[in-house]
Amino acid sequence: MRAAIFNGPGRIDLGERPDPVIQSPTDAIVRVTLACVCGSDLWYYRGLSPHDLGPIGHEFMGVVEEVGREVRGIAAGDLVVAPFTYSDGTCPICRAGVTSQCLHGGGFGNHGIDGGQGEAVRVPFAGATLVKVPGSGHSDETLRSVLALSDVMCTGHHAAVSGDVRAGSTVAVVGDGAVGLCAVIAAKRLGAARIIALSRNPARQALASGFGATDIVSERGEAADAAVLELTDGLGVDAALECVGTGESMATAFAIARAGSTVGAVGAPHDVRVPIESVIFRNIGLRGGVSPARAYIPDLLPDVLAGRIDPGRVFDYDTDLEHIADAYAAMDERRAVKSLVRMGAA
Amino acid sequence: MRAAIFNGPGRIDLGERPDPVIQSPTDAIVRVTLACVCGSDLWYYRGLSPHDLGPIGHEFMGVVEEVGREVRGIAAGDLVVAPFTYSDGTCPICRAGVTSQCLHGGGFGNHGIDGGQGEAVRVPFAGATLVKVPGSGHSDETLRSVLALSDVMCTGHHAAVSGDVRAGSTVAVVGDGAVGLCAVIAAKRLGAARIIALSRNPARQALASGFGATDIVSERGEAADAAVLELTDGLGVDAALECVGTGESMATAFAIARAGSTVGAVGAPHDVRVPIESVIFRNIGLRGGVSPARAYIPDLLPDVLAGRIDPGRVFDYDTDLEHIADAYAAMDERRAVKSLVRMGAA
Repeated sequence: MRAAIFNGPGRIDLGERPDPVIQSPTDAIVRVTLACVCGSDLWYYRGLSPHDLGPIGHEFMGVVEEVGREVRGIAAGDLVVAPFTYSDGTCPICRAGVTSQCLHGGGFGNHGIDGGQGEAVRVPFAGATLVKVPGSGHSDETLRSVLALSDVMCTGHHAAVSGDVRAGSTVAVVGDGAVGLCAVIAAKRLGAARIIALSRNPARQALASGFGATDIVSERGEAADAAVLELTDGLGVDAALECVGTGESMATAFAIARAGSTVGAVGAPHDVRVPIESVIFRNIGLRGGVSPARAYIPDLLPDVLAGRIDPGRVFDYDTDLEHIADAYAAMDERRAVKSLVRMGAA
Repeated sequence: MRAAIFNGPGRIDLGERPDPVIQSPTDAIVRVTLACVCGSDLWYYRGLSPHDLGPIGHEFMGVVEEVGREVRGIAAGDLVVAPFTYSDGTCPICRAGVTSQCLHGGGFGNHGIDGGQGEAVRVPFAGATLVKVPGSGHSDETLRSVLALSDVMCTGHHAAVSGDVRAGSTVAVVGDGAVGLCAVIAAKRLGAARIIALSRNPARQALASGFGATDIVSERGEAADAAVLELTDGLGVDAALECVGTGESMATAFAIARAGSTVGAVGAPHDVRVPIESVIFRNIGLRGGVSPARAYIPDLLPDVLAGRIDPGRVFDYDTDLEHIADAYAAMDERRAVKSLVRMGAA
């Protein structure tokens, strides 16, 4: 089969990989229809994080081609979306709802597991991992939003859930990448009364507003802190959602969080210091991490299928597997928020 | 009136202070019957934290002597317990349940506010701050446990609530001071199935076991981490309660916390680094801070009065106001877990 191959920093190529086969009775083979590039893929693309050479990509959806004999609930021909981590659904951590920390789980597109940016994927623990997409004849628009459930929408949702967003909350979203934009959607969906998006980019500001942001703050650093505090009568927000992962973004999240609130943080951390003084003396908690997407998809999928949320709008660059290198370059050069990759004919 | 006076590091003296008077219509004057010394009092006693010279102590109970004309729910003659911070009960933060962060609140025994270690205290926002203790003729044992609600019991409870202890949880308590011991009580009260107390001191181990600890780990540092992980099949605990505030204790709390759990932290931090990698890549949250004692006392007081919990057992040194300096020295020299101070005749 054809698949995107990581050949070192800056080198993403279309290559050949063995067609995946069932290795364990709990495996399924999924023929990929749509995949995408994650902001976190840029870390190894840029040489800033380690990654095995070989197949890549952890966000995909497709059609089940074959299932192992112990797979339940999923059958050949089913349209499915895959969360970006696979999980057995039965370990104590999965049972606690944190499927992203499954004791026997892992991520796609690294450490010998097929990547989503290829024509087919062997999915471990397929019955517990894959989520069947009901119905048929879905529009391209709907399918793009289903694809967003594989990671970004669930990650934005995890920020909002971790930050304890509820009906009537005032929320601030730090970060206007695809995850931050999905956090706006999630906050709106959870009933937030006011959503302040921190963004300097006009196109992303417009997307945030379209998703439900009520206020835009275009300042950065301490000026951003001051602007949010001014918008909230000096109190800060009920939920600050940290969707970047830098020291500055974390500092902003804590600075604009109301005393007694919880920062919901999902950005992969780089040079981040948690202000423990604020945790203790201002009672500001910190929660988040790798989204347990598998636990969230069943809640979010009906809203996507009914058109109540449309996270697929974060995809602003469309290409096919042949042009996978362009999909990365567009995001690396900030020409795209997020790149969608079509697999073409099976 | 007579009151304990801080005259600089190591210098606690019995002195004279003006009798407190009603200054605002929401004030009350409380004649103190029992007070105590907090572990946090030792920071300024030892010269390690700043503190105004003058009155001290933030934990007390007593009898209401006089109320301002706008005080509701509290009347002269009432037996009351004071949370260690006063709060107006009406600001947005109080309404969110975080009375310790009241926009108009503060602590007793510093910044011009009477200390609890004295014969009388002017209590701001008395109707919102003080909690009436129903009944009469309470035993000394019961009153000691009521006094513990002013801080340590509510602080231990805050660690347990912040760590999301629930029925069936496996809990570890890092720290065997009065707060850690109260965290054991709180975990047991919330239904924890297993409570691992980290303590090297035989007397404190015995208290912890009496309060409901099912396992004692006497190691420290990485050996303690390994011991707790071995007790929990390598998974870690559902709730790690950090009741010390040092870098080592926080590191231990994160090392023994189960992926996807939340560290409940109430120790005043000194040289603490929060491992952000664990927050993000192991989904371990961090919450806690200054206990909103006023919000918790109404829940805990009935259990104290019914004898279902007995946090007063943490007091292992009894003295009177005359010997207030001894009360500090006993704790400073680690001869006492916590010192109780009787006020004697009004």
